[in-house]
Amino acid sequence: MLAAARDCFAERGFEGCTIRAIAGAAGVDPALVHHYFGSKEDLFVAAVEAPVDPADLISDVFTGGRESLGENVLRTFLRVWDGPMQPAGLALVRSATGSEHRARLLREFLIARVLRRVVGTLDLPPAEREARGALVASQLAGLILTRYVLRLEPLASASAESLVAALAPTLQRYLTGEVALPRP
Amino acid sequence: MLAAARDCFAERGFEGCTIRAIAGAAGVDPALVHHYFGSKEDLFVAAVEAPVDPADLISDVFTGGRESLGENVLRTFLRVWDGPMQPAGLALVRSATGSEHRARLLREFLIARVLRRVVGTLDLPPAEREARGALVASQLAGLILTRYVLRLEPLASASAESLVAALAPTLQRYLTGEVALPRP
Repeated sequence: MLAAARDCFAERGFEGCTIRAIAGAAGVDPALVHHYFGSKEDLFVAAVEAPVDPADLISDVFTGGRESLGENVLRTFLRVWDGPMQPAGLALVRSATGSEHRARLLREFLIARVLRRVVGTLDLPPAEREARGALVASQLAGLILTRYVLRLEPLASASAESLVAALAPTLQRYLTGEVALPRP
Repeated sequence: MLAAARDCFAERGFEGCTIRAIAGAAGVDPALVHHYFGSKEDLFVAAVEAPVDPADLISDVFTGGRESLGENVLRTFLRVWDGPMQPAGLALVRSATGSEHRARLLREFLIARVLRRVVGTLDLPPAEREARGALVASQLAGLILTRYVLRLEPLASASAESLVAALAPTLQRYLTGEVALPRP
């Protein structure tokens, strides 16, 4: 069931998959999938092997309003990555860099469970929301690689507060500031 | 010889290793290492399995002076990563996420062959140079993960010019702008 779920989410994205289609591909009854995994959201989290559903943390991000969104995104990100979920997070990065299939799965997960939630509240055209979300992802993904994988100093030993001071202005510009949008 | 070089560079960094020490660890004559690999720089590039010595590209970065450094770093970065070296670059990322030893090796390589060169020309205290270099690395590493590994849109299909417009201001701020430095 998990393999069928991974295939479906990687190929068609979260919206494009149904529990029924995944059950069909796995040759089981949809009720069995519901029984083992609960909702489609829960199944997605299990398929990706994510240590937490990021969507559950998103409410923390909106506590301070639009002008502190960059800061709050970064604080929530660091709370998760500096905590006990780091090894599972690193395993996700490793599997995504090691396999195109897992990379597609993680991308669809990021889009559906993180980026759309963070930028979804911004009153902007969808293409602009998507572009701003991707720019935020580009800075945060790089923080993962440099702080936790390469352990590049001073990022590796930096306090969360000093990282917020250094990087939150970047995230805030990507989210709500003046920025040229990436386009083909 | 390459295995001994990897161990030495990963543990002691580029400055801390000599051809003599690497030859000793490999149980061969230093002249043999020189014969096969040339200079210590060349040996480092071979040990990391880098498709190019980034230090060879650094002169392009300084063509426009201090105020266009962010833009030129990004243009040079994209020329390499959008070109035929991309698969070898991705193999480096994969090996660094898959092994702590390779992550240390890549980190030392980045510091010695890229970051110190880029920020070395800035008239700043060493700790500040290092911090600014690491911030630049954090944005560029994330562009690698999102554009080339996860293939997250619109970053994956974006033109180099539109990425320069979106991201160069970030790099320029990290290099020469007002930024709180990450610290423990």
